[in-house]
Amino acid sequence: MEKMRAAVVRSFGAPLEIEERPVPTPGPGELLIRVQASGVCHTDLHAAHGDWPIKPVLPFVPGHEAVGRVAAIGPGVKGFRESDAVGVPWLHDACGCCEHCETGWETLCEAQHNTGYGVDGGYADYVIANAAYVGRLPDQVDFAQMAPILCAGVTTYKGLKETEARPGQWVVISGVGGLGHVAVQYAKAMGLHVAAIDVSDDKLSLARALGADVAMSANDPELVAKLRRETEGGAHGVLVTAPSVPAFRQAIDVARRRGTVSLVGLPSGDFLTPIFDVVLKRITIRGSIVGTRADLAEAIAFAVEGKVRTRVETVPLETINGVFQRLEAGRIDGRVVLTF
Amino acid sequence: MEKMRAAVVRSFGAPLEIEERPVPTPGPGELLIRVQASGVCHTDLHAAHGDWPIKPVLPFVPGHEAVGRVAAIGPGVKGFRESDAVGVPWLHDACGCCEHCETGWETLCEAQHNTGYGVDGGYADYVIANAAYVGRLPDQVDFAQMAPILCAGVTTYKGLKETEARPGQWVVISGVGGLGHVAVQYAKAMGLHVAAIDVSDDKLSLARALGADVAMSANDPELVAKLRRETEGGAHGVLVTAPSVPAFRQAIDVARRRGTVSLVGLPSGDFLTPIFDVVLKRITIRGSIVGTRADLAEAIAFAVEGKVRTRVETVPLETINGVFQRLEAGRIDGRVVLTF
Amino acid sequence: MEKMRAAVVRSFGAPLEIEERPVPTPGPGELLIRVQASGVCHTDLHAAHGDWPIKPVLPFVPGHEAVGRVAAIGPGVKGFRESDAVGVPWLHDACGCCEHCETGWETLCEAQHNTGYGVDGGYADYVIANAAYVGRLPDQVDFAQMAPILCAGVTTYKGLKETEARPGQWVVISGVGGLGHVAVQYAKAMGLHVAAIDVSDDKLSLARALGADVAMSANDPELVAKLRRETEGGAHGVLVTAPSVPAFRQAIDVARRRGTVSLVGLPSGDFLTPIFDVVLKRITIRGSIVGTRADLAEAIAFAVEGKVRTRVETVPLETINGVFQRLEAGRIDGRVVLTF
Amino acid sequence: MEKMRAAVVRSFGAPLEIEERPVPTPGPGELLIRVQASGVCHTDLHAAHGDWPIKPVLPFVPGHEAVGRVAAIGPGVKGFRESDAVGVPWLHDACGCCEHCETGWETLCEAQHNTGYGVDGGYADYVIANAAYVGRLPDQVDFAQMAPILCAGVTTYKGLKETEARPGQWVVISGVGGLGHVAVQYAKAMGLHVAAIDVSDDKLSLARALGADVAMSANDPELVAKLRRETEGGAHGVLVTAPSVPAFRQAIDVARRRGTVSLVGLPSGDFLTPIFDVVLKRITIRGSIVGTRADLAEAIAFAVEGKVRTRVETVPLETINGVFQRLEAGRIDGRVVLTF
Repeated sequence: MEKMRAAVVRSFGAPLEIEERPVPTPGPGELLIRVQASGVCHTDLHAAHGDWPIKPVLPFVPGHEAVGRVAAIGPGVKGFRESDAVGVPWLHDACGCCEHCETGWETLCEAQHNTGYGVDGGYADYVIANAAYVGRLPDQVDFAQMAPILCAGVTTYKGLKETEARPGQWVVISGVGGLGHVAVQYAKAMGLHVAAIDVSDDKLSLARALGADVAMSANDPELVAKLRRETEGGAHGVLVTAPSVPAFRQAIDVARRRGTVSLVGLPSGDFLTPIFDVVLKRITIRGSIVGTRADLAEAIAFAVEGKVRTRVETVPLETINGVFQRLEAGRIDGRVVLTF
Repeated sequence: MEKMRAAVVRSFGAPLEIEERPVPTPGPGELLIRVQASGVCHTDLHAAHGDWPIKPVLPFVPGHEAVGRVAAIGPGVKGFRESDAVGVPWLHDACGCCEHCETGWETLCEAQHNTGYGVDGGYADYVIANAAYVGRLPDQVDFAQMAPILCAGVTTYKGLKETEARPGQWVVISGVGGLGHVAVQYAKAMGLHVAAIDVSDDKLSLARALGADVAMSANDPELVAKLRRETEGGAHGVLVTAPSVPAFRQAIDVARRRGTVSLVGLPSGDFLTPIFDVVLKRITIRGSIVGTRADLAEAIAFAVEGKVRTRVETVPLETINGVFQRLEAGRIDGRVVLTF
Repeated sequence: MEKMRAAVVRSFGAPLEIEERPVPTPGPGELLIRVQASGVCHTDLHAAHGDWPIKPVLPFVPGHEAVGRVAAIGPGVKGFRESDAVGVPWLHDACGCCEHCETGWETLCEAQHNTGYGVDGGYADYVIANAAYVGRLPDQVDFAQMAPILCAGVTTYKGLKETEARPGQWVVISGVGGLGHVAVQYAKAMGLHVAAIDVSDDKLSLARALGADVAMSANDPELVAKLRRETEGGAHGVLVTAPSVPAFRQAIDVARRRGTVSLVGLPSGDFLTPIFDVVLKRITIRGSIVGTRADLAEAIAFAVEGKVRTRVETVPLETINGVFQRLEAGRIDGRVVLTF
Repeated sequence: MEKMRAAVVRSFGAPLEIEERPVPTPGPGELLIRVQASGVCHTDLHAAHGDWPIKPVLPFVPGHEAVGRVAAIGPGVKGFRESDAVGVPWLHDACGCCEHCETGWETLCEAQHNTGYGVDGGYADYVIANAAYVGRLPDQVDFAQMAPILCAGVTTYKGLKETEARPGQWVVISGVGGLGHVAVQYAKAMGLHVAAIDVSDDKLSLARALGADVAMSANDPELVAKLRRETEGGAHGVLVTAPSVPAFRQAIDVARRRGTVSLVGLPSGDFLTPIFDVVLKRITIRGSIVGTRADLAEAIAFAVEGKVRTRVETVPLETINGVFQRLEAGRIDGRVVLTF
């Protein structure tokens, strides 16, 4: 039986172990993917630490930004050939017949499985995917560059859509990290005006280089007033990529009357919402979680066209524990991608 | 010069004084309305107490649910005749040419004036209205019964629209007071299924009598589980008519995945928002403030058709201070309306 | 091998033959349904006559309003038990992974199969259904009464949704036959005001009995003027249930500025569209074909609640050729349902 | 009394006469504009010929793409100063209080007046505008280049919005003339993929130069098949800038399932609509007439940013009759603008 390497979480909070495992066999409706690149997302850290109410069953392999080529095809799968380039997202599969699946919102399916959480993910030479839920990639693709689109890309793209801001309007993107630097580019490609906020000058420079019309320090005490002036009344949409109490409050303050604040990411804890302002300004606050298959196809298309380019640092699988340490310490620019 | 009675706030928190004043003369674009009935809204109490950041200029006459007949017509006004029945809402006027006014959202105009706050209101024999912002009433109208539609009616109707719940779906109405008992009826007329929540058994009975499909005590520790069962997964829309910290939290808990929680009313203070749930369930939280002229016309039409009937207690203007005391103590069912 | 009766089209335009056939066996993902009632739709006539560009392969069994109970369950099907009550609609199955299927518009899937057209339908004692596409019915259901909901119901319900008319607004329903008499009831349940148009006085009486606020003869030369007066400017939505050249023209004429004309049914031929009026009044014309699974579940729910009751005449399977003759001659009120 | 030149229609179909007239005085709410540039639109030709059902009252001055500076301010006007740069659009004014005006659709107001049709327009040294309906321009503006935005710009921008196509999707723009060459640029600025159709190779070259992803001859017998291939299934939106029977039919044929065909321009006559296709593909056909004040402000903003540049040929007012002849003969590229 063929063997593969995998980075495995054996106990929450402990370092991952690089193990040798048998290459899995795709079941009905499944694909076996030979992983070429696998992005490292903050969610993987939450998974490995068991941070959330519903924890993964140990042991498990994290990773939900895996891209590669079809290596084997399970029974009953149609429309795929070996060596097709695909990406494996967070949404491993869903039931297909609940009210959410039937209305194009499979990301809300209560019976969904998640890659690198409920089922083994992409920190391995091979990963199993559900054929109906992979993203299709062009044959000539820069895998490392594409990997983060599978989560960071689609999540921010969907989050921007959820603000309902239209071409020509303003969005504020709060946080220019792994998610935010991609969000800036999607927003520009969508015809939006972009104001980026971050605490780091380097990240503000990056935002400007990626097309942000305005970039301002989150620590500027005049931030709200300045942004409201620049945007002539506040932003139509605000995307909070790294929800924190002050970022959330700032988001509401810089929102235009009738604006929408879209939240991505999954911090635990409660945030204070200033009801008086939300009512008087008719603010909409909306949570957004990854994206559907249709969103993913669209997010990939923008990247394939070259309108969105992720900023990646590639490292070998074996260095994952070091990457996690840097991620925890906030010492990563853009996105780290494991390559194989 | 003709005289009229008016209930006047001379200092915040002090009892209103019933004074004799000259009947005002309508300026260009204005109407003088002979008030027949004037609803008492919780907002009047906030105004009289100076509770909000921007306070009214003293002295002033509260009241923004005034209905009556045109008594005099200012220069340049077209389309009105003396004795036409009209209602004077919270939105006294707006600028007409900002982005909000131009897109049918004049309620967000930053230059708006508010009846009974920035300009004298309906606790008087006569009130001045801006002709372009009054609600048209049929000639044969029950004024006392119609008065609360001008604020409680349009506010809850708009709040329900803002949930985006469609006919056949479920809304939860939290609070069955002056706003909520009207909201239940609008929701039924809109083809929605209604679950009402209140702490009082009497109000739950009222909700049932008004057509609520389900009515449950807010104090029931099993409330969330029961409501999720009754609604087969949670409510598509939740209207929080009396925002309070626990009501807001319950609203999010009973919302269906992809549901919308609509907040009306203007409490001060911040509410804790459980971000993890909001993101994972893709909840939308939306503030809603009164309604536009188009909303008002629609809200009135439902009432004129008899699909919505307010529950009113009529009292003379002179008893206003007693009414305020009862309102503060939460000892009012439905709506109190001053009659003249 | 067990046998069943089936009404079979052996050549286009010829009478159907009642044959004895083996009861089919459900394949993977399929259900065998013991038919209790099966509605007769105008589409079945088109199918049997081979009227449309893409014709069914002969021989075939028509019928796409079949309701009954699960008699056998194919491999891999979850969530069903024998004797569950279900309905089998026009959309037998779809691919599940095209852009339309992934966004809740499986009715537009180019790889769809249609019951009673591409696969054998419900004019038989048993019919095969795809488990993922059946409509769920309550255990205690009046099958004959429910059958027409599977096509006439969901089609008109969806068509009404597609007008985007909101509760309190006006819809005109053009034609009060098998589709229209159901449409009137859905519209009322959705909180709409309804004006019904037909050439037959009996059908106008029926419309009034079913709740139409206004019912007018299509032959009245003053129809447009009267309807515009009744609806105070024209209808927000118009549902044309039996598209014909004059009905289509009338629909545009009675539409309000910014209104939507929704077309259901599948006549061949081209209709003249008055472009000047469509542009100046900003009319939207929209085709609508049956409904999705979500639409079907909603349409069924209205019927289960008793808000929509179809008017049916039940006859035995063997009389189908006579029914077709009457259908062709326009001599059917409401809907004919075959019972077993 | 000061005099001005004006090009006047004295009888339908006859050449315009260049006359000397007194400079008008702005009434209440009005502005007097010193015209700097005035675009020539096909509508002006229809007006001068009396082509439409409701004709202008003779004599009148055409022109509804006038830009210039405020020369005098009528009583009661706020927010303007002399020499402010503004544009005067087709919508001279509207009632402000009908259901359309109150919901941000003043272009549908039945009491509207139109510049250069019901009131004298911009083919003159001075024009009267309603202050509440002018478009604001930046002080440093290229007037000739901006003039066509006032009608061609806002009309195509609105027409594109009405297709509801989203960034990343495909629109087909049918016709690359005065409207279409602007439409291509708006579409690109809105993040759309653009396929342009025209009969002229020069115009296809122009479309490509302006950013069209694809440009194809309307005469190519393989057009529909090719466009469906290029757009992977058809266009999400189609903007028909010069409605003609074959263009309209092509528009429906190249529309994707669930796509929208938006019609601008006002040809008389009826077009054949293939109902079977419209229903089966769930096509939406929608008329669109100019744009609201909010649309105009947005359309101007795109132009001010330099994302849309009109292709103009400037000529003196006195040459208007020659321009009309060329316009009638279809011998104009882009837009002719009269300068003063």
